Amino acid sequence: MKECKIIIMGFGSVGQGIAQAIALKKAMIKDKYGVELKVVAAADSSTSAINPDGLEEMLLIHSKNSEGNLSAYPEFGTNVSGLDVLDAVEYDLLMEATPTNISTAEPALSLTLKAFDQGKDVVTSNKGHLAIKFKNVTRAAEENGVEFKYEASVGGAMPIINFTRETLSSCGVKSIVGILNGTTNYILSRMTSEGSAYDITLKESQELGIAETDPTQDVEGIDAACKTVILANSLLGIDATYDDVEVEGISNITSQAIELAGKDGYVIKLIAEVSKDNLRVSPRLVKKGSPYDIGGTLNMATIKTELAGDVTVMGLGAGSLETASAMLTDVISILKTKY
Amino acid sequence: MKECKIIIMGFGSVGQGIAQAIALKKAMIKDKYGVELKVVAAADSSTSAINPDGLEEMLLIHSKNSEGNLSAYPEFGTNVSGLDVLDAVEYDLLMEATPTNISTAEPALSLTLKAFDQGKDVVTSNKGHLAIKFKNVTRAAEENGVEFKYEASVGGAMPIINFTRETLSSCGVKSIVGILNGTTNYILSRMTSEGSAYDITLKESQELGIAETDPTQDVEGIDAACKTVILANSLLGIDATYDDVEVEGISNITSQAIELAGKDGYVIKLIAEVSKDNLRVSPRLVKKGSPYDIGGTLNMATIKTELAGDVTVMGLGAGSLETASAMLTDVISILKTKY
Repeated sequence: MKECKIIIMGFGSVGQGIAQAIALKKAMIKDKYGVELKVVAAADSSTSAINPDGLEEMLLIHSKNSEGNLSAYPEFGTNVSGLDVLDAVEYDLLMEATPTNISTAEPALSLTLKAFDQGKDVVTSNKGHLAIKFKNVTRAAEENGVEFKYEASVGGAMPIINFTRETLSSCGVKSIVGILNGTTNYILSRMTSEGSAYDITLKESQELGIAETDPTQDVEGIDAACKTVILANSLLGIDATYDDVEVEGISNITSQAIELAGKDGYVIKLIAEVSKDNLRVSPRLVKKGSPYDIGGTLNMATIKTELAGDVTVMGLGAGSLETASAMLTDVISILKTKY
Repeated sequence: MKECKIIIMGFGSVGQGIAQAIALKKAMIKDKYGVELKVVAAADSSTSAINPDGLEEMLLIHSKNSEGNLSAYPEFGTNVSGLDVLDAVEYDLLMEATPTNISTAEPALSLTLKAFDQGKDVVTSNKGHLAIKFKNVTRAAEENGVEFKYEASVGGAMPIINFTRETLSSCGVKSIVGILNGTTNYILSRMTSEGSAYDITLKESQELGIAETDPTQDVEGIDAACKTVILANSLLGIDATYDDVEVEGISNITSQAIELAGKDGYVIKLIAEVSKDNLRVSPRLVKKGSPYDIGGTLNMATIKTELAGDVTVMGLGAGSLETASAMLTDVISILKTKY
């Protein structure tokens, strides 16, 4: 039986989702693709659990939740962290789920480049290094002859990158227009349904755990702009970075504006547009009842094609297990081609 | 340069779409995948054009449209037809786009099995052989070690089969619920928006060329039931045939029923459901504004998964070039793995 030894870097919500997804699906993967997944290391920002013979996924989650860190993992918990983890054990594939940093791209950037350098494949949910150094990172993967996949970086469980590349490969993509941030969509949907003001709705969203304590990344459109850059590079071959995107967030949207739009049959959504001529995130009017008029924290994207007309996909834009499932699908596609 | 010699069987709307799609995309495919597509034969029910050195795609369409058949193709037009075409010229891949026959599955069945027997790959848009003999046909492909792809048989340009298999491979599919017939969706949408009766709306749809002169296949749910069988077999591994689907069409839906549903916030749609417990096509109430509330001839499907929640896809369910694009995507996936 072939084996794929995995290191999980980052053990917050997504990292724990990866452990859970592997626990749930490793039997299916063994059965269907003939490869045994084995988590040989998992690390958060300061601790790790490392065992060349494999760790128990659910015990990793349990240790993290009960003791607050991974050094609590019985027998194999350590204080090794960061880049050192990649030297501490033999592995085949890095699943990188550290927090996105849009200024330095660290620690994702160094971890990813080190893994490439070691000849290892990488699957990531991180947007930072892709948004500011897409070309450098993808070129480094090519130069080292390794696989690099990042479906989870855009749209969480909504497939968009592999979807467009694989299942629309003949169609000729002209542009992608969509809603790529669930938090702002939730706020705008709620302002629309309840007629409430932005500040109040943001506060409620924070109380529900949908918006973060510092909501800037979401409400100012930064998160959606990062995703715009990733789609531009990966699907349209545009050599863009974060600074090339025209960004406007939702913090100036008033309940009056939403009400006025409603009277004319429109709703206001934070729309990302990706085309050769336009890289833009901005609040826009969309028709009620159109595919863009989705509620809650959903994400959606319409891919405008030359041969197949408009194709639309929608799904959950976030969530621990949901995002992890996109990463595990990336892992399977690597298993299928390389193992 | 590697070459892929193609025979197109069936030269109606979809067959001509294939020729057009190849003409539009062969340069891209040569450039990106390093394979030259060459149409060596195209055939309608009684005539063909055959040239081992390759035919001109747009001239095939021109000949068919101006003279009504393919024997009009300059120099290489013939009266060879049916199974004989597969013996008349060396080829690598059959693109099968003859009309669906739900009783005999012919000529698709014989053509497909003959191509497999000759060791050739097949891409089809046909539903007949898949709906009544799915296991036999897919097993024959396996036994002959050839590729058999049929994305276009369900949902036209809306990706659903490759989408679910490839981009949701880790997720665990529980069920698929969707709108798989564009004609009935058009009729129901129009009855809803105009308050018109079924008979009148059907007649108008026929005048617009959306419904066929004999609309039975569409309005009685037969077409959607065929697609239900294909999804059950290909995505859920259910060994079902057409007779296992509970089918009810839309011909008994009254404008009164639609109006009543509307008052409660619902619309009536012809919904196909595919799950271990349920293979069913029937008119059902869906909430206004839900992903199922799509207009016109669109198709949609929601894939309910274990890990990724609900993922929805929508697109054009029919159209010459649109359906052909799904077939060409299948061809590309074969080129990527075998060439």
